[in-house]
Amino acid sequence: MAMMTRDSYVASLDDGRRIFAEGEQVKDLSRHPQFTTAIQLVGQGYADHYRPDDDASGPYFDIPRSPAQLKELLSDLLHWDMVTVTTSQGLLALLTAAARMRADHPEASARIEGYFDYCRRNDLRCVQAITDAKGDRRLPPGAQEDPDVYTRIVERRSDGVIIRGAKLHISSAAVCHELVVMPTKNMKPGEEDYAIACAVPVNAPGVRIVNTSYAPRERQGDFPVSAKHNMPEGFIIFDDVFVPAERVFLDGQVGHSATFAHALGLWERLGGTAHMSEFADQLVGLAQLIAEANGTERINHIREKIAEMVIYATMIRSGLEAAIANAEESPEGWYFPSELYTNAAKHYAAADYSLMVRHLHDIGGGSILTAPSTADLDNDEVGPLIKKYMRTKDGIDGDYRTRLFHAIRDFTADAYGGWQLVTMLQSGGGLYAQRLVARKHYDMDKAKRSALELAGLA
Amino acid sequence: MAMMTRDSYVASLDDGRRIFAEGEQVKDLSRHPQFTTAIQLVGQGYADHYRPDDDASGPYFDIPRSPAQLKELLSDLLHWDMVTVTTSQGLLALLTAAARMRADHPEASARIEGYFDYCRRNDLRCVQAITDAKGDRRLPPGAQEDPDVYTRIVERRSDGVIIRGAKLHISSAAVCHELVVMPTKNMKPGEEDYAIACAVPVNAPGVRIVNTSYAPRERQGDFPVSAKHNMPEGFIIFDDVFVPAERVFLDGQVGHSATFAHALGLWERLGGTAHMSEFADQLVGLAQLIAEANGTERINHIREKIAEMVIYATMIRSGLEAAIANAEESPEGWYFPSELYTNAAKHYAAADYSLMVRHLHDIGGGSILTAPSTADLDNDEVGPLIKKYMRTKDGIDGDYRTRLFHAIRDFTADAYGGWQLVTMLQSGGGLYAQRLVARKHYDMDKAKRSALELAGLA
Amino acid sequence: MAMMTRDSYVASLDDGRRIFAEGEQVKDLSRHPQFTTAIQLVGQGYADHYRPDDDASGPYFDIPRSPAQLKELLSDLLHWDMVTVTTSQGLLALLTAAARMRADHPEASARIEGYFDYCRRNDLRCVQAITDAKGDRRLPPGAQEDPDVYTRIVERRSDGVIIRGAKLHISSAAVCHELVVMPTKNMKPGEEDYAIACAVPVNAPGVRIVNTSYAPRERQGDFPVSAKHNMPEGFIIFDDVFVPAERVFLDGQVGHSATFAHALGLWERLGGTAHMSEFADQLVGLAQLIAEANGTERINHIREKIAEMVIYATMIRSGLEAAIANAEESPEGWYFPSELYTNAAKHYAAADYSLMVRHLHDIGGGSILTAPSTADLDNDEVGPLIKKYMRTKDGIDGDYRTRLFHAIRDFTADAYGGWQLVTMLQSGGGLYAQRLVARKHYDMDKAKRSALELAGLA
Amino acid sequence: MAMMTRDSYVASLDDGRRIFAEGEQVKDLSRHPQFTTAIQLVGQGYADHYRPDDDASGPYFDIPRSPAQLKELLSDLLHWDMVTVTTSQGLLALLTAAARMRADHPEASARIEGYFDYCRRNDLRCVQAITDAKGDRRLPPGAQEDPDVYTRIVERRSDGVIIRGAKLHISSAAVCHELVVMPTKNMKPGEEDYAIACAVPVNAPGVRIVNTSYAPRERQGDFPVSAKHNMPEGFIIFDDVFVPAERVFLDGQVGHSATFAHALGLWERLGGTAHMSEFADQLVGLAQLIAEANGTERINHIREKIAEMVIYATMIRSGLEAAIANAEESPEGWYFPSELYTNAAKHYAAADYSLMVRHLHDIGGGSILTAPSTADLDNDEVGPLIKKYMRTKDGIDGDYRTRLFHAIRDFTADAYGGWQLVTMLQSGGGLYAQRLVARKHYDMDKAKRSALELAGLA
Repeated sequence: MAMMTRDSYVASLDDGRRIFAEGEQVKDLSRHPQFTTAIQLVGQGYADHYRPDDDASGPYFDIPRSPAQLKELLSDLLHWDMVTVTTSQGLLALLTAAARMRADHPEASARIEGYFDYCRRNDLRCVQAITDAKGDRRLPPGAQEDPDVYTRIVERRSDGVIIRGAKLHISSAAVCHELVVMPTKNMKPGEEDYAIACAVPVNAPGVRIVNTSYAPRERQGDFPVSAKHNMPEGFIIFDDVFVPAERVFLDGQVGHSATFAHALGLWERLGGTAHMSEFADQLVGLAQLIAEANGTERINHIREKIAEMVIYATMIRSGLEAAIANAEESPEGWYFPSELYTNAAKHYAAADYSLMVRHLHDIGGGSILTAPSTADLDNDEVGPLIKKYMRTKDGIDGDYRTRLFHAIRDFTADAYGGWQLVTMLQSGGGLYAQRLVARKHYDMDKAKRSALELAGLA
Repeated sequence: MAMMTRDSYVASLDDGRRIFAEGEQVKDLSRHPQFTTAIQLVGQGYADHYRPDDDASGPYFDIPRSPAQLKELLSDLLHWDMVTVTTSQGLLALLTAAARMRADHPEASARIEGYFDYCRRNDLRCVQAITDAKGDRRLPPGAQEDPDVYTRIVERRSDGVIIRGAKLHISSAAVCHELVVMPTKNMKPGEEDYAIACAVPVNAPGVRIVNTSYAPRERQGDFPVSAKHNMPEGFIIFDDVFVPAERVFLDGQVGHSATFAHALGLWERLGGTAHMSEFADQLVGLAQLIAEANGTERINHIREKIAEMVIYATMIRSGLEAAIANAEESPEGWYFPSELYTNAAKHYAAADYSLMVRHLHDIGGGSILTAPSTADLDNDEVGPLIKKYMRTKDGIDGDYRTRLFHAIRDFTADAYGGWQLVTMLQSGGGLYAQRLVARKHYDMDKAKRSALELAGLA
Repeated sequence: MAMMTRDSYVASLDDGRRIFAEGEQVKDLSRHPQFTTAIQLVGQGYADHYRPDDDASGPYFDIPRSPAQLKELLSDLLHWDMVTVTTSQGLLALLTAAARMRADHPEASARIEGYFDYCRRNDLRCVQAITDAKGDRRLPPGAQEDPDVYTRIVERRSDGVIIRGAKLHISSAAVCHELVVMPTKNMKPGEEDYAIACAVPVNAPGVRIVNTSYAPRERQGDFPVSAKHNMPEGFIIFDDVFVPAERVFLDGQVGHSATFAHALGLWERLGGTAHMSEFADQLVGLAQLIAEANGTERINHIREKIAEMVIYATMIRSGLEAAIANAEESPEGWYFPSELYTNAAKHYAAADYSLMVRHLHDIGGGSILTAPSTADLDNDEVGPLIKKYMRTKDGIDGDYRTRLFHAIRDFTADAYGGWQLVTMLQSGGGLYAQRLVARKHYDMDKAKRSALELAGLA
Repeated sequence: MAMMTRDSYVASLDDGRRIFAEGEQVKDLSRHPQFTTAIQLVGQGYADHYRPDDDASGPYFDIPRSPAQLKELLSDLLHWDMVTVTTSQGLLALLTAAARMRADHPEASARIEGYFDYCRRNDLRCVQAITDAKGDRRLPPGAQEDPDVYTRIVERRSDGVIIRGAKLHISSAAVCHELVVMPTKNMKPGEEDYAIACAVPVNAPGVRIVNTSYAPRERQGDFPVSAKHNMPEGFIIFDDVFVPAERVFLDGQVGHSATFAHALGLWERLGGTAHMSEFADQLVGLAQLIAEANGTERINHIREKIAEMVIYATMIRSGLEAAIANAEESPEGWYFPSELYTNAAKHYAAADYSLMVRHLHDIGGGSILTAPSTADLDNDEVGPLIKKYMRTKDGIDGDYRTRLFHAIRDFTADAYGGWQLVTMLQSGGGLYAQRLVARKHYDMDKAKRSALELAGLA
C-alpha cells in the first residue's frame, strides 16, 4: 500500500484504455488538448495529498463518523479536483449501500468493503457510471427493442459475469482508474439481468469511452474559468466486458437494485449542493465586482438584485448546515447527511440558478458578450483604444474590466456557462427526482396532525 | 416577586386603560367579543406557566446562553400565546440593545436590565411599540408639517419626559401590561427629540388604544382557526404621556437611535420565521389532507405542488437551524441568532408564502369558498343532503370534508387569511428591510475574493 | 315578449324557490342581508337595460357576428351585473355547443335555439350549473359508492327526464331564473345516464339552493368594495327534478358530453379574463394611490413593483386583444374567441394574480390590516386623533387614507380578497385545465417544423 | 438608383474599412472565418430581394402606412438577415425621430429624409451605433475623467463636425455600409457636444471596428444553429472622424437628444419581440421533439412544462398583436407600434426566457451536454455503437437524436446559447428600461379613477 505521486498517476493512465474524441481514438492522452487540463488538475490533487508513509491514504478515503467530520468533508471537497470528489462520493455511496444491504446480502457488503479497501490501498480514482442509454422511456428494460439499452449481464460464469451496455454523462471517466457501475433505476422481478452493480477498471477489455468537452480549444485568454477548470464528459460503452466475481456487488437481487442509485443520489446531491453554494458566492462576487467596475453598485435595482443573490447563496448554505446538523448514523457508526434537507437544498439551488444568472447578466450589461478579445488588448493599434474606452475610473482600468467581462461570459454565457446551466438541473437526477425524495423523507404525518389540530378536527 | 395566575391576570386588566373598538370606548374588556379570545389565550399562558414559589419566573424571561438554549427557546415559543412571545422577544431585544450600548451609555444598559428585572419579578406581559405614523415618507421627522407624526419628547423634566405621538400595528397591546416604545428608524443630529426609547404602562394617563380585529363576530363554527386564535391590533396614541426617568432608555442619543429597531428586528424575524415554518407545515398538512379527502393525492400535478410546499417548509427550517448554529455570543454570554441567516430565512419564507397559498387553493378547489355553512349541516332538510354530496368515500364523510374546507378558507382565504398574507410580508419590517440586512451581514469581501480567483484576477 | 323592469324582476323571485342560508330556509329573499345587495345589483341591471318596446331585448342576448361585435361585448360585460354576464356567457356557450352538435344532433341544436329564444323573449336571467359533487376523484361516475355524486337521469319518461344530483359553486343561482345544467366532464359509453344537459327553472319542485356569501354582515363602512359587490354562492341540490323534453339538450349522447363544458369554458375564460384585466388595472390604481398617499411613489423599489403590475395588466389586455383578433367564425356566422389566446391569457392572469396582490401589500404597508374602523373616525375622543395621525400631507387627509386602506384590505386581504384569490385560480376550471386547452389549440406541428429547420434536420 | 446584387455587395466591402479580430487587423474580410457566414447571409439577403428595374428598392425601405402593413413588416423581418432588419429598424427609427422633431427642427427632419432616400437609392445596409463606453456610470458625460467615454463633437467646422468616442455592442457593423450614430441617453444643457446624431460610412477615415463572435471556429457539425446564424459584434472606435453637415441630424439640440434613442428603442423592441416569439416557438418545438425522441412526451410533468412554454410563446405573440392593433399614426401617415404594448411584451419575453430554457434543459436531459460529437458518429469503431445507444425506437434513430441534442446545446447551452441569454435581457436597453417605458405609456389616471370608484372614494 502506497499513495501515488503526480507522475505515477500520469503514468498509470498509459494502460491501454480506449479513449475517443472528435471522431478519432486518442493516442497520447496527456498531450491531447481535450484532456491536458483535466490530467493536470487530477495530478495536482495527487501532489497535494501525497504522503510517502506506507500506510498513508488520502482524506478522500475517510468515512465521516460524526456530524463534525461530515462538515469537514463538505468543506474539503470544495478544494479537491473533481475526480477526487467523485472518488469520495462514489465510495461513500457504495458504503452507504453496503450498510443498507448488510442484513439481506452480507456477502455483497463484504465485497464492497473489500473493494473500498483495494481502492484506498492503491490510491485509485473512481467515477460512478449510472445513467443507462434507456432507449424508449415508456418501456421497461426488458421490453425495449434493443435489450442492451440498459446495461445488463449477458453471461454468468463461475468466476464472474459479462456485461453489455452503455453509461452516459460520466464526467472524468477517461482520466480516472475505476468505473463503479450501478443500475440506473429500480428493477423488478424478471429484470434480474439488469440488476447489476460492479466495478470495472477503465482499461478492461471491451470498454470504450467517447468524450465531449467544453474545454476551450483556442483563445485561452478569453476563457479564464473553463481553460483552468474542465473535465471530459464520457459516453462509456461496455462491449461484453468480463467482471470477476469479487468486483460484483449486485447480481440479480432486484430488491436492492435501487439501493445504489439512492445512496449515490444522496452523496451526489450533498456534494453538488456544496459546490452550488460556492458557485452562488461566486455569482454574488462577480455581480458586485462588475457593478463596482461599472459604477452602478449603489443604484437601487442593482443593489436589490445583489441582495436577492446574497439570500440565494445564504439559503443554500442553510440547507447544507441543516443536512449536516440532522445527519443520521448507521449501525456502523457512519454518518450520512439528512435526505430531506439535502434534497430540499439541492432542489432550491438548482431551481433558482438560472434566475441568479439572469440577475448577473442584467447587472453586467452587454459587454459580457462584446468585450473585445484579450488578444486585442495587446494589439498596438487598437489595444490602447480598447483600454481607454473600457476604463471607467481610478482603480478600474480597461484591462481589468475587459477580463472581468470575459470571466462572466465564460462562467455563465458561453460553453462552460451552458454546461453549468444544464448540470445544475440534471446532476443528482433532475428537479423531479429531488422533489420526490424530499417528499418521501418529510414527516407528513406530523404535518397532517398539525393541520388537523389547527382545523379543530384532531 | 410572584408569578401571576390566570385570574390575577384578568383582574390586572381592569386598571383604567382606555381601549376603543368599532367606534366606542370598551367598558368591560374581558367580555367584549373582540377581546374575549385574546384574554383567554393570554390567561391560559399564565395558567400553563404558573408556579407558586416566591422566586419563580416564566421561561419567557430566560436569556439563552448557548445555541442549544436558543434552539429550545425557538421551539418553546411555538407553543406560547402571542403576548408571551412578544414579552420574550421584546425584552431580549432590549437586552440585545443594552449589550450594544453598554460601552457608550452604561447607564441606559443598567436601566434596561432594571426594567427587565421589574417585568420578570411582576410577571408582566409586554409588547413593542415601534412603527410611527410617519406622515409624508419623503420627509424626515423634523420636516413634517405635523411634528407629532413621529413619536417625540415634547418636554423634558427633571424626573422624566413627556411624549406625544402614535404607534401603529401593535398586536395585543390592549391585553398586555407594558408598551416598550422605540424609535421607528435611525435619527440624525438635530432629531434628538425623536430619539426616544422607553417603557409605558398601558394604563398610563394619556394612552389610548384603538383596536381592529380579524376575530369572527359570528358563525364561529365556520371559523375554526380564527375563532380560537385572534389578537386585537392596536393603534396606540400617546397624548402627552409622562415617562419617569428610570423607564427612559434612550433620550436624544441619536447615535444609538437605530440600535433598538435593529435588535428588535432580529428577534422579531427569528420568531416570525419560526412561526412561518409552523405555518408552512400546516399548509402542507392541509394540502395533503384535502387532496386525500378529494381523492387526488396521487395525481401527478397535485403531488408536485405538495412536494414544492414540502421543500418550502424544509428550507425555512434550514434557515432557522443555520441561524442558531451560527449564533453569536455577546460579552455578557448571551446568544443572539445570526443576522445573516435569520434575515435570509425570513425573506425566503415571506416572499414565497403567497405562492404556497396559491398551491393550496389550486389543490383544494372551489369548495374552499362555497362549502355550505356548518350551520347548514345541522338543518333537517338540507343537512343530510349536504353531507351526502360532500362525502367522497369511506373515511371521508361530508361533515369532516366540509369542516376541512372551512379551515382552509379561514386560514388562507378569509379575514384571517388576509391578515396572514399581509403580516408575512410586513412583520419584521418588510421584504426590503430583510434584503438590506441580509446584504449587510453577508461576507461580501470573501465572495469578491472568490470571484477574482475564479476570474484569474486575484 | 317584453323586457322586465326592476320591480317585475324583484317580484319574479317570489316564485316558491327554496333558498337556504346559515342553517335556515330564507323566507323573504329580497330582505335577507345575504341577498339584498345581489338583488339590488341585478335589479339595477334590469333598470339600466329596460326598453318598453314589444320586440325589445337586452344586448346580453346579442350574438357577436364579427370581431368588432365580440370586442364590444367584452367591453359591455365589464359594466353588467354578474347575472347579466352569466346569462350572456351561458347562452353563448349553449349556442356554441349547438353549432358544434348540429351535424350530429340537429334536434338538440334546435331545442337550444328554442330555449335561447324563450329566455330572450321573457328577459330571463340564467346561470350555468356545471360542477358536480364528484365524490372520490379517482373513480368514474358509474363506479362511485353513491351513484348520485354526478348529476344523472334517474328516470326517462315519454315527456321528459327526472334528474338527481348536486351542482356546486354556482354563483348567483338564488337570484336568477334559470339553471343551465351541463355535464362536468366527458362521459364514456356506459355512462349515458350522466350525459345530461338541460335547463331547469330555479323554482322547479325538488330544487334547493344552499348559499354562502362573502357579503359583510356588519361594519359596512369598512367594506367599501364587498358591501356593494357581492353575490351568493349556491350549492344546488336536484332531488328528483322533472325536466320536460323540450328543455333537454343532451340525453345520453356521450360523444357530445364534453361539448357543453368546453364551450362554456371558452366563454367563461374570456369573460373571466376581461374581468381580470379590470381587476389588474384596479390593483395598479390602488398601488399608485396608496404610494402617493404614503409619499413613497418615487422610491425606486416601489416604482419597480408598480411597473411590474402595469406590465401584468397590459399583458392580460394583450391576450384579450389577440383572442378577439383571432376569433373564429362558425357556419352560422357567429364569432367565437380564439381558444388558444383566451386560455393562455386566462392562465397568465390567474397564475400571477397572487404575486400582484403581494406587490400591493408590500407597497401599502401594515395599515392595510390595522387602520382603525371608519366607525372610530366618527368617535369624538379618538376620531380627531386618528385623522391627525393617518394624515400625511396636503391633499391626503386621514379620513381619505384610512378609507383607502380599508378598500385595499377589503379587495385583497379579507373575506372578499380571499374569494378573489381562489376564484382567480378556480374559475373556468383551474390552471391545469387552461394549460391543457392552450396546449391543444397551439400549432405544435408548425413549432416542430421550425425547430427542425433550426436544427438543420428538416 | 439601382439595387445591389450579391456580388456587388461583397465587392462593396472592399472599401478600405479597418476591421480587427482576435488581435489582428483582418485583411480579407469575406474569407475570414469570423465573417464568412455573416457575409453569406447578408449576400443572400441581397440575392433574395434583387430586382433589376431602375427604380426598384427593397421592401426594407417601405414605411408602414397602416396597421396591416405594420403587421406585414413584422412578419417579413423574421425572414430577413440581421443587417436587413437593422437597416429597416434603424431607418424607421430615424424617420420616427424626424416626425417627432419636425416642429422644432424641420431642417434636421429634412436631412434625415434625404439620408433615408440616399440609402434607399443605393440599396445600402445600416446599423445603429448607440451605446457609448460610458465610463463611470455615476457621472454625467461632462464630469468623466476622460471626456471621450461618451461620443462627442471635438470640433465644429463650416462643412461638418469631427467626432470622437466609441460605440459598443454594434452587431454586424463590420459587414454593413452605414453607421447611424445616436446619443446613448438624454443630454442636458451644458452637454451640447454630446448631443450628436449622424451617419458615418464604415470606411470613413478614423473608424475602426474590433470584433468578437460566437461563430464556431471548428466542429461545425456540432453547431448546427450557430454555424449558420452568426454575426460579428463590433466595438466601434471613432478616432476624430469627420462627418459632413448633410449627414448630421442632431448637433447640440439637447432637448431632442433622447428622441433618437426612444425611437430606436421602440423599433428595436418591436423587432426583438417578434424574434423572441419565433425563438419561443422554436423552444417549444425543440422541447416537444426531444420529449418525443426520448419517449417522455406523455409524462405529466413534461407535458405541463411544454404547456407553460406554449403559453409563454402565445403571450408574446399576443403582445405583438396588441402592439400592432394599437399602433399610432404620425402626421405623415406613418404607423408606429404602441409603446405600451411593445415594451410590456418585450419585458415579458425577456424576463421569462431563461425559465423557458430551464424547462427545455429539464425536459431534454444530460445528453444535451454529453452527446458525442457528430464526428464520432462517422468513426468506424464507435460510430455504430453510439448510434445503437442513442437510438430509442422506430423513427428515432441515433443519428437524428444525437443531432437534435447538439441543436439544443448550440441554441441554448453553448456560446450562442449564452449570447441569446444575455441578448434577450440587454437588447433594447434592459429590463429596467422596458419597465420604465411601459409605466410611462400606461394610462395611470384611468387606473386611479377606477380604483377610487372601487374604493367608494370617487
